Amino acid sequence: MRAEGVKARVFLVGAGPGDPELLTVRAHRLLATAEIVLHDSLIDARILDLAGSAELVDVGKRCGKKSTAQVTINELLVGCARTGRLVVRLKGGDPMVFGRATEEMDALAAAGIGFEVVPGVSAAMGAAASLKISLTRRQVARSVHFLTGHGAEGGLPAHDWAALAKAGGTLVVYMGGQTVGGLAAHFIEAGMAPEMPAVAVENASLPGERVWVGSVASLPRVLDEVKPDGPVLLMIGEALAEAGGDGYRWTHPSYGSALLAD
Amino acid sequence: MRAEGVKARVFLVGAGPGDPELLTVRAHRLLATAEIVLHDSLIDARILDLAGSAELVDVGKRCGKKSTAQVTINELLVGCARTGRLVVRLKGGDPMVFGRATEEMDALAAAGIGFEVVPGVSAAMGAAASLKISLTRRQVARSVHFLTGHGAEGGLPAHDWAALAKAGGTLVVYMGGQTVGGLAAHFIEAGMAPEMPAVAVENASLPGERVWVGSVASLPRVLDEVKPDGPVLLMIGEALAEAGGDGYRWTHPSYGSALLAD
Repeated sequence: MRAEGVKARVFLVGAGPGDPELLTVRAHRLLATAEIVLHDSLIDARILDLAGSAELVDVGKRCGKKSTAQVTINELLVGCARTGRLVVRLKGGDPMVFGRATEEMDALAAAGIGFEVVPGVSAAMGAAASLKISLTRRQVARSVHFLTGHGAEGGLPAHDWAALAKAGGTLVVYMGGQTVGGLAAHFIEAGMAPEMPAVAVENASLPGERVWVGSVASLPRVLDEVKPDGPVLLMIGEALAEAGGDGYRWTHPSYGSALLAD
Repeated sequence: MRAEGVKARVFLVGAGPGDPELLTVRAHRLLATAEIVLHDSLIDARILDLAGSAELVDVGKRCGKKSTAQVTINELLVGCARTGRLVVRLKGGDPMVFGRATEEMDALAAAGIGFEVVPGVSAAMGAAASLKISLTRRQVARSVHFLTGHGAEGGLPAHDWAALAKAGGTLVVYMGGQTVGGLAAHFIEAGMAPEMPAVAVENASLPGERVWVGSVASLPRVLDEVKPDGPVLLMIGEALAEAGGDGYRWTHPSYGSALLAD
């Protein structure tokens, strides 16, 4: 424990899906007062600009690219906190959902450094808002399941595909752009209908957002053709049959809603 | 469709888990400029205060209490939008996750009224940040599952309990305070270990937040004794064995971490 009366000087902060307007008020305030910001690679430049005069350190974690080792990030965090500076550790989305925060929290706790976690809007909610699709449409989806498409050892994690397919709600796959082919094959083999509606969203909430609509069977082909460069979120389930509506953007209208179930 | 050039004047906005600091910057800005706010019953008074001079209309939706019929809410939304006022429809958490937004979006689209959805921090992320527990701890939980404990007809929905128990990730139950007994019985009958770590969070992120820790077998007894009054979120899974750490709050230390698996 740090000396009593010393408040948290380290903040694990969710940066939300990308749009600076989707930062929380607290994240906005902390960035403005931070003295050093250790941030993921994919944080939008407009968000980093809000950090004002703080020192910015890119600690990486970009899928498939060179990134700072976790142990180095932990040491950096602890070292910065010990200098007494106000430290923000800025993570895409929400820190507690696929944010790899546990090791950093453990390192801070082991060093006796108080910290606070500031939640953020996760990418799934950002994408659902863009699409104007409820992930839990009544009578259609009573649950929503977030899974990662990218395991600790790279490649597809060993999910229980049959259980996920049977669970009956909306499936949201984070970091699934590279592994969508394997994912789709596993789900179909586990009994999911090949025509199950599926949507891929690249750069949710950002100006470069792109959306492709199809089925769990067709989406791998589509993504293989277009090869998205930004982070891709996959959403699979009957609720996605509702894709469309006022103001809906089809960046690639050639992959329109014709493939969707009625 | 409304006339071209007329921007959205209706905003379905997520209010986040409760703390006004956890509103998004965009939600904060929209509340300050709104002319009328149609809000759920459980929105914190400090958030409603941000609406300044806007007319506030409580449209209910409080579990088990008298609330405005959905069709009336839809008519109100459309009617308000037609007066040309800037309308904010404020929902707890995120509008696209258990926010019952589909009917309202359908009504607006049918009336040709443009609208925008502003995502929010969902209660699960708010609670996980308070607890400082990653819902997707590596090697422990590769997925996280959000389900409702309160079906459309009241009572427990007909989830596929075996599939959910087998899916292997962290389970988060929204609105599960009343049905925790049935939930636990279904999960244990479906093969979940009775000692599986489980946590209940009441009023996540608010000053009145209370946390109880136990197992899927013990939590129903605990909640039956304390009878929480505010909205309760249940979290079940191996990741919850990590409950604890610097700054962690046990409002009821008598229900301490002794019941947790090592």
